[in-house]
This record gives sequence, structure tokens and C-alpha cells, in this order.
Amino acid sequence: MAQFDSKTVKTIGVYCSGGDAPGMNAAIRAVVRTAIFRKLKVVGIMQGYTGFLEKHFVPMDPKSVANIIQRGGSVLKAGRCLEFHQAETRRVAADNIRSAGIDAMVCIGGDGSFTGADLLWQEHKLPIVGVPGTIDNDIFGTEHTIGFDTAVNTALDAIDRIRDTAASHDRLFIVEVMGRDSGFIAVGAGLAGGAEDIFIPEHPFQIEKTIEHIKQSMARGKMSSILVTAEGQKPGRAYDLAEAIRKHSGFQSKVCILGHIQRGGSPSAYDRLVASRLGSAAVDQLLRGVCGVMVGTRGEELTVVELTHCLKQKKHVNRALIELAQVLSN
Amino acid sequence: MAQFDSKTVKTIGVYCSGGDAPGMNAAIRAVVRTAIFRKLKVVGIMQGYTGFLEKHFVPMDPKSVANIIQRGGSVLKAGRCLEFHQAETRRVAADNIRSAGIDAMVCIGGDGSFTGADLLWQEHKLPIVGVPGTIDNDIFGTEHTIGFDTAVNTALDAIDRIRDTAASHDRLFIVEVMGRDSGFIAVGAGLAGGAEDIFIPEHPFQIEKTIEHIKQSMARGKMSSILVTAEGQKPGRAYDLAEAIRKHSGFQSKVCILGHIQRGGSPSAYDRLVASRLGSAAVDQLLRGVCGVMVGTRGEELTVVELTHCLKQKKHVNRALIELAQVLSN
Amino acid sequence: MAQFDSKTVKTIGVYCSGGDAPGMNAAIRAVVRTAIFRKLKVVGIMQGYTGFLEKHFVPMDPKSVANIIQRGGSVLKAGRCLEFHQAETRRVAADNIRSAGIDAMVCIGGDGSFTGADLLWQEHKLPIVGVPGTIDNDIFGTEHTIGFDTAVNTALDAIDRIRDTAASHDRLFIVEVMGRDSGFIAVGAGLAGGAEDIFIPEHPFQIEKTIEHIKQSMARGKMSSILVTAEGQKPGRAYDLAEAIRKHSGFQSKVCILGHIQRGGSPSAYDRLVASRLGSAAVDQLLRGVCGVMVGTRGEELTVVELTHCLKQKKHVNRALIELAQVLSN
Amino acid sequence: MAQFDSKTVKTIGVYCSGGDAPGMNAAIRAVVRTAIFRKLKVVGIMQGYTGFLEKHFVPMDPKSVANIIQRGGSVLKAGRCLEFHQAETRRVAADNIRSAGIDAMVCIGGDGSFTGADLLWQEHKLPIVGVPGTIDNDIFGTEHTIGFDTAVNTALDAIDRIRDTAASHDRLFIVEVMGRDSGFIAVGAGLAGGAEDIFIPEHPFQIEKTIEHIKQSMARGKMSSILVTAEGQKPGRAYDLAEAIRKHSGFQSKVCILGHIQRGGSPSAYDRLVASRLGSAAVDQLLRGVCGVMVGTRGEELTVVELTHCLKQKKHVNRALIELAQVLSN
Repeated sequence: MAQFDSKTVKTIGVYCSGGDAPGMNAAIRAVVRTAIFRKLKVVGIMQGYTGFLEKHFVPMDPKSVANIIQRGGSVLKAGRCLEFHQAETRRVAADNIRSAGIDAMVCIGGDGSFTGADLLWQEHKLPIVGVPGTIDNDIFGTEHTIGFDTAVNTALDAIDRIRDTAASHDRLFIVEVMGRDSGFIAVGAGLAGGAEDIFIPEHPFQIEKTIEHIKQSMARGKMSSILVTAEGQKPGRAYDLAEAIRKHSGFQSKVCILGHIQRGGSPSAYDRLVASRLGSAAVDQLLRGVCGVMVGTRGEELTVVELTHCLKQKKHVNRALIELAQVLSN
Repeated sequence: MAQFDSKTVKTIGVYCSGGDAPGMNAAIRAVVRTAIFRKLKVVGIMQGYTGFLEKHFVPMDPKSVANIIQRGGSVLKAGRCLEFHQAETRRVAADNIRSAGIDAMVCIGGDGSFTGADLLWQEHKLPIVGVPGTIDNDIFGTEHTIGFDTAVNTALDAIDRIRDTAASHDRLFIVEVMGRDSGFIAVGAGLAGGAEDIFIPEHPFQIEKTIEHIKQSMARGKMSSILVTAEGQKPGRAYDLAEAIRKHSGFQSKVCILGHIQRGGSPSAYDRLVASRLGSAAVDQLLRGVCGVMVGTRGEELTVVELTHCLKQKKHVNRALIELAQVLSN
Repeated sequence: MAQFDSKTVKTIGVYCSGGDAPGMNAAIRAVVRTAIFRKLKVVGIMQGYTGFLEKHFVPMDPKSVANIIQRGGSVLKAGRCLEFHQAETRRVAADNIRSAGIDAMVCIGGDGSFTGADLLWQEHKLPIVGVPGTIDNDIFGTEHTIGFDTAVNTALDAIDRIRDTAASHDRLFIVEVMGRDSGFIAVGAGLAGGAEDIFIPEHPFQIEKTIEHIKQSMARGKMSSILVTAEGQKPGRAYDLAEAIRKHSGFQSKVCILGHIQRGGSPSAYDRLVASRLGSAAVDQLLRGVCGVMVGTRGEELTVVELTHCLKQKKHVNRALIELAQVLSN
Repeated sequence: MAQFDSKTVKTIGVYCSGGDAPGMNAAIRAVVRTAIFRKLKVVGIMQGYTGFLEKHFVPMDPKSVANIIQRGGSVLKAGRCLEFHQAETRRVAADNIRSAGIDAMVCIGGDGSFTGADLLWQEHKLPIVGVPGTIDNDIFGTEHTIGFDTAVNTALDAIDRIRDTAASHDRLFIVEVMGRDSGFIAVGAGLAGGAEDIFIPEHPFQIEKTIEHIKQSMARGKMSSILVTAEGQKPGRAYDLAEAIRKHSGFQSKVCILGHIQRGGSPSAYDRLVASRLGSAAVDQLLRGVCGVMVGTRGEELTVVELTHCLKQKKHVNRALIELAQVLSN
């Protein structure tokens, strides 16, 4: 856990990076208002690391973040910045930050964002605290990332709707949710949505058991089923699954790829609560002279974890929940 | 408008046919409870015309439809029945209906369903009144079909979510909604969603104007745009549109195909209201000895239109609404 | 229908007045963007007639109304202004408007707002077109007012939630909805919500029939019931109803007063559609030199009605819908 | 932690008691399907302890719980049973349970329900495992109770709606949420809703600071504010708060009592997830011969806590969250 001299901190920067997630605005609001309450100034950096390079800096006051706690997306925008992989680019970025009078920063984002933040500290001694913001929930060191709860509820709402048609037409549906190479959304929405089975990128398809399960359900008179799959490296995995099922069983299925609706929408209560707590805690860590860390959650407690630790470890889906989904859909 | 002797009607049948639509349950409830209130018996026919052939008949009482007004899908299920194109099949169906003691019927569905209903009357003198139930709103003779309002709101909710990400990432999104070869959902959700432009199956893409529009928006600093397209004959039209735009302008876009989520969900107030009124009115028409008609809406009034009339005419999208969307997204 | 010389119109004012309603922002957006598309300037007047007096004028450009179509409330605020009952106040208001270079206006509001608008035309020849915006739907000359559809859906969502508890605890609930002295929300939400009975301010309680109805339901095994009542002149009518029922039957009931949640929230698709059409049509009427009118809806068509006509007549609830609710809850 | 011989367990009973909560159905489904998967029989007991006395027992199979995971309320109904305070009543209840062949039970409910469960074990050696189901979240030994997350989101949705009107009319609103004598819902919804201040039953009103806070907000140009209060022993506390504020400051406020809408509605993803896990875990505890305990959550882990421990201790609201709300609404 890195330490720096926080007495000289007069101005804090805040930015979002990577994909947007519902609750990022609540986190920005918490950073801004906590910092101002602690007599600091705050500068917003637009569009993540791109804004570092383009000097897209905006002074923030309490009104800048009025009436945004309930909004999806990010008023500071977000986005990836490929040039940031180059050391020279990061040097320019650090210079720009220093020239703007920004003494320390809060980075709201995921793994890629934290890698950049970690390098800015290692190479240029810019003190940064990370706040986990991604719908994918795939960050080690925190049980919950901002946006995950909303994304699961959005996917669940879609599954509930699809079930209406599945039941009315005795059909097999395959619903593909987001999450890239991790299965948290799939497991959360699948279990809550009463899915027959859940497929996550961490594991190859094992469809024999699923087909057996569906056949038993049909034998008992349950003519409709819903399977949930995470997208994996790129959208479209549901089509592969549908084809595999057709080949092994002859069952026709309908595919629904939920896509970008999962990234947006008014954040859930829990995402707003976590965002508010973590955004505020990030400022407090900086004021204690702690940086190079991420603040996270473990149940109702907050945690502080070194960024390098978050980046090296992989967070695993609780596979017992997939087995539970299978038992409960019997 | 065909007439029959309604004095002998003791038992009414009710069925849903075609794709399911939110509000069908409210319509079923209205048919059942109105009929029972008028001292008739009611039989539910499961799975549309398939149920006619498989004699899948269920007696209905007031409790059969308790607590369903708020549910999507159809407790009587729905579905298409290709064999019904054959006269011999219809003869068997008519015999089965008569043997079950069903004297007259209410058919909840769309064009295909009404074609079957019309033939059952023409060929076998089975008195049927149609209730327009389809999310596509593509039935001539009624301003509103049951399920349309809910589907538009579901699509709109998705567009609202996508806008969060579009705005946070300065992106162009193309959202594909349902509606088969008609553009009602696209126009409703597109205009209400603040879309830059709306593409309907009734017309080929004319993207020059759209691209010009987007360029002007960008020049004014509006970096994100949403286009809405109806699916057309088969899902995937949004990909063609994205490719056409890329070719003409170099703009990259993200495609979201909303798909089956639009068919489900708890029906909106308006869909429940219309379903309740039309389901009840259908029974009343039968009791007056009127059949071979569809009951529909014109503003707050109910209409009665001959089925043959509904089937021959095509209902057109109000193109002024597309132009309005273009003006309002400036 | 009053006429004025529209050739001199260069700048249009727009304001909201009375209670806020979901969709007002969509109407403001439509006024602003249509006017700018027609090469006019637009000025927003804040806080209704109060803003006339305090010269609270804001120039509007297309960006002023970006990203507001989905938001409840009004970016121009709203509110009542009691001083406007005095002729002298109106004279000052008219002078302020003229001094600000505003040539014609669009007023979004209800009866009270239109009274003010009518007087400004009668007394000071300020040309105004009205757009009906109120959740109460109590304006003669239009089937639909902006905000009504959203309010009904909000009330319905609450009734659906309450039904869960009513059914789980075998209870009688009385739900009070808004609408002041008109019963449109009560009828819409009550019928769509499957209420046993609906009470509107236009009629005194007649509870014998209701109690009989509930007793019959209980005899058939239906142990929970929901009654819906409009608030009437002031909130709390539900308590009177509960007491009357207790006295006549001994039945205990739970009262839920939905209150202000019905005024807010993201507008429904239909409210946004109507708001967009009417806001745009209001500008077009002004450009044709027509004023002293309200634009409204009749089914899918738009109507143009003299303000004096709207103000003199009372719009009546369709009582057949209350009877339908009684039949369908049997 | 009590132990019993689980080898003789062939049939499990399941019941809900106390107020209903969204997610109870998901818990019932989990109990039924897990038990059947483990080769047990399951009997549902209707209406909580009342059903024990009236022998209202229903055999459950996998289909009994089909398509209920998404529904609010409880298919087994719920309710309080005052007679259960008498030892003689409990003796009759225990006899009825034994006569019905029920060997062990899962009780879904809150403090009152667990008191009954504990006594049935102490007095009659009926093995019971508790599952925490109440929107109030006031049960010691678990971070989360089933229904709490949904209730907070319902309250939050209402606050979001009210904020639209508050902002449009520059008003002070006081929103009263449920929770009886505990403040969990108030804190969750208040913090997530951006409330200026939150009042919980655990503490007397201290409104000087609140009034100061509101005055400062107004001085900065923020003319609308929302306060959230828990109901306390009986609904209506918001009126007392409004009166106290009026007396001390002259500020007028509008009161909204959210009431019973907070108990219903389709459960959130998290409530369904927790309900599924806890319902299943309760059966597994019984099969291990453990009883007299409640299963609960601590973050992502499940806990097992003695009922007597849950009943003796009081779970406290994290007061830091109230202070955070004050900081963040500055």
C-alpha cells in the first residue's frame, strides 16, 4: 500500500474509464461532494485517459453533480484509450495533470483503467485511488462493482419478459448476457430468472446434462425452458450454443442477445449506495496519504486493496450457484 | 356484417392465435367474465388452432382468470397452425368445436388468425368475433391492437438505456425493433426515444439525408446518435443499415436487436384498458347475433369492422411522424 | 378562432404552468426544435406566470432541450401564480413579454393556465396557443392530456404491488389516486388494475352495491379486494370511504394514498408521442396566424379547439368503464 | 445449535409468517425443489401459524412452484396469529403438524415468526430452520433479509418521481418509508435517493441541523429538498416532522407516505438470489440434523445463527450512512 504526502493535496481529479456503468454518476457525485466538504477543489477529466491527453479538464462544484445520482452513463463520459499502453503517452498525460494543478486522482473503472492508474503512480508518482466501476463484476478484491447490480436486474427483466413468450409458445430460449470473459451477470440473472442452465465463459459447453434436463422437464409437462449464457470474448456465443443443442438433440431454440441495454438505465439502489460509499471512501484514502489502492466491498464492510493485487488475481464465479440453478429449475 | 341467430348461444369459446402479446390475458379475462355475467358458459381453447384439432378444451370460470390481468403472455397459450391452410383440417376443427358444444367464439390475434376465423364462418357457419391482439399494430380497422402500447414502451425503455451509453461514449447506435413488415413500433419508439431517424420496412433505406443529419449534429457538438429501424421480413436489417452507413460515410455504429423482450412483460394500462373493453365488446357483439367482424378502437370509441375488410386493406404508418422525428432531433 | 398577423413573429416564448406533468419536457423540446427549424428564435419563461412578472426569461437553443425527452418534471419549472387573477398584474406581464421581444407564445398546462392565456390574448393581444399538459386529463376538447398516460401507469404499478399483499393477507385495500375533482386516473387505473369498484368525485359514494359485490366475491372464495377512489377536492377521501364501508358492513380496510409519485417519472411512450406532436403543432398554428386555441388529440388525429370552448365545457368520464370494471371483477 | 436425528425426515413443511415480502415465493420454490431433489416430500402450510391450527396443508410438487420466482407476495399466504402466544395453542399446532406427517419445517418470516418457531422446538421438539423474510431488514445475524432490496428499490423509484415535482416546483418534500421501528429502508432509500437528511426511529428528531442544511442549500440556489423518514411505531411520523420543521423555520413541506406499495412487486435480482440460496440452505441444514437456527448472509457467504441469538440481539443501522447522506447532499 503506497503512501504519499497528502498535506499538499489541494485539488483532486476524477475520471471514468473503460465501459460506462450505471452508478458511475453516483460515484462522481460522491467524490466531488466529499472532496468539497473536505475543503478541496475538484477537477473532472472527460473521456478517461483520452481527456488526460487532450487536456479536457472541467472544474466541478456541488451543482455540477446535482440531480445526477439517478442517471445512467457518466457525465464525465468514459472510454478506452489505446495509446495509453505507451510509456511516452503516459508521460505526456502526467505532465498535463500536473500542469492543471491536480494533485491526486480518483479513477472509476475496471481492470484496464486500473492498469493505467497503477502505471501513472509507478512511473510518475501521481497518487490515484481506484473505484471499481464495471457491469461485469470481474475485479478481484471487491464483492461488488458499481453497475453490476443494475445490469443483472436489467438482464433479469428481459428474461422475465422472454419467459412470457416461452411459456405461451412452449419454446426453448437461449438468452445471452454481457460479461465478456466472466460469468457473473450470467449466474446472477440466470439463477434469479429461473433458468434451466447457465453457461459461463470459464467453462466449455457441457450440453449433454442440459439436454437430459430439458427432456426430463418435457416429460413432466414443462414445455418451455430458458438457458442463459455469458457472451464470452465476443457477442454471439448463444448461436453456437443453439447449434450445439440442435445437433445433439434436434431441439430448435430462439436466441436473444440482450446487448447494450445492460450497460444503461437508472442505477439500482444498491449500485447507488455502493457508488456513494466508495466514491467518498476514495477521497478519504487520498486524504490519509494512501494511494495505489482500490476501495471495494465485502458484505457491508469496505475494503482497501492494493491495485497490483487486484490486477494479478482473477475473481472466480461461485460455481455452486450454477448447480443451484440446475436443482431449482427441476 | 354477418348475422346469426344468437338465441341458441349457450357456450362461448375463446382462443389466442399467432404470436403472443401483452394484454391477451386481460382480453381473455374480459371475455370470460362478461360471458359469465351474461349467463353463458365459456370454454378456453388452448394453443390457437392447434387446440381445435387436438380438442384441447378447458372449461373456464371466473377464478380461471383471477389475477391474470397484469401478466404478459397468454394463459391459453398461442401459436401458429400451418395445417389450417387446408380446408379438410378446418372441417375437422369445426366438427370438434361443435362436438364440444361451443356455439360461438372470440378469436384474439392478428391477420393470420382472422383469416382462419373468417374461413370457419364462410365454410362452416361458426360465428366468430375477432379481437385485435398483436404487438405489431398492423391490423386495418383499429387504431390500436392489444400489446402494441406495451411493446413500444419496452422498446423505448431499451432505447433510453442505450442512450446512456451512446452519450457516454459518443457513439452511433442502430436499434432494431420488431414489427415484421410494418413500422408502427419503430415509429412509436423512435419518435418517443428521440431517434435521429427511423427506418421502416415500407420504404427502402435513404441514408444520404440521415448521414447529412448526423454530420450536422456532430458539427454542433452532438457526438452521439440513435437510429431506429423495424426488422422487416426477418431480423437483422439493422446490420444492413450499419453496413450501408459505413460504406457511405465511414461511420462505425453499434447494432442492438431488441428481439423477443418486446413480446412480453406486464401489459401497460392502455393495453389492459383496450383489452378489457374489446374482450367485453366481442361477447356483446355475439349476443347481438353479429359475427364475421372485428371490434377495434378509434380514439376513445369502439368500432366494429368486417373481418374481410380488415384482411383486404393495409394499415399505413403515418409518415408525418417520421419527418417529425427528424425535425425534433435537430 | 382568433387570427393574428404571423408574419412579424420572430421569437416564440414557451412556458409551463400549473402542476408539472410527465411529458412537459418532451413538449418543450418539440416547441423549441420546431420553432428553430422554422427559423424562429425561442425564449423559455421560467416558473409559469411568475416568470412573466419576474422577467425570468432564458434563451433556448437546440442543446437546451437535448436529452430531456425522457425526463419527468419541467426544465422550465411550473407552478401557480395567484396574482395573475388581477388585471393589473396581467398588464405588467404583457409589457414584460413585449419588452423581451417575444411575439407569440405556447402555454403548456391545464385549465388555470389557459384562463391566463386567454386573458392575455383578450386584454393585450398576446397570441398564445395552448398545449394540454396535466396528469388529470380533465380538459375538454382533447381525449388525452400530456402526463395522463404516465400517471395512470404509475398508479397501476402501485395497484399491482398492493395486490400482492392484498392476496397474501386476504385484505380489502382502498387505493386513492390523484385527479382532483375528476375521475379519469381513477377509472383508468382502476379498470386496468382489476379493481372491484371505482369511486369518482363526480358521484357520491354508493357503497351498498360495492359491499354486496365484495360479499359475493368472498362467498366464492375470493378473499381480497381492491377499491380505487379519486381524491376529490382534497386528499383523504379514501379514509371517508373506509369509514363508510366499516359502518355499513364491518369490513376493515387498509388505505393507500398514492400521492405525488403520480406526478413524476420518465414519461410513457404515448405521453412523449403526444407531447412531441402537440408541441410541434402549436408552433405551426402560431405560424399560420391562429391563436386563442388549444391543440389536442382525437384518436390519432390532432384537433384545434378554441380556448374559450375548452374552458366553458366540462369533460366527462365514460361511466360505462366503471360498470365494466364491476362486471370484470366478478 | 440444536441437533436432531435427520434420518427419519421424510416430509418437510414450509410456511410464511408475518408480513409478506417480495422474494418469499422464490424462497418457497427453493425449499420445495431442493427438498424434492433430495428425495423428500414437501407440504405447504397456508397462512402461517393460522394454517397450523386450521390444518390448512397443501402437498407441493415441482409444478406447485413453477413460474412463481418472479412474483411478489406469497403463494402460501402469510399473516400474524395472535393465539400463538398461548402454550396450549402451540400444543395443538404441534399435534396437527405431527398428524400430517410433517417431520421438519422451514419457516420464512421475521422476528415474530422465529419466536413461534423457537417455541415449537423448545416445547415440542419440532425441528425448524428459519429463513429471514421481511422488507424491514431488522433481523440480527444476517446482513440481508428477503424483500429488503426490493422494498428499497420501490421506495427509491418513488423518491425519484417525487424529485421531478420537487425540482419543478421548488418544494420541500418529506417522504415516509416503511420499516416499523428500524431505519434500514429509510437509510438505503434516502442515501440512494440523494435525500438531504434521513430520520430513523432509533433517534429523536434533531432538526436544527437539517434546517440549517436546507437554508444553506437555498442560499446556493438549490430550491428543492427531499427528507426521508422511517415510519416508526405507526405510519404518520412524516406529519410530525413536517410540523416540527414548520414551527422551527416556517418552511412548508409536502408529505408523501409511501405505504403498502413497498411490500409488493416482482422481487429484485438480489432478493431472488438470496431467497434461492437461503431456501435451499435451510433444507440442507435440516438434512444435516441442525435446527433451531436461521440461515442468513454475510456478503457472499451464508451464515447459520441460533434462533435464540437472532431474537435476543438488535441489529443496528450503520449511522455513518446517514452522515454520508448529509455530506453528499451538500
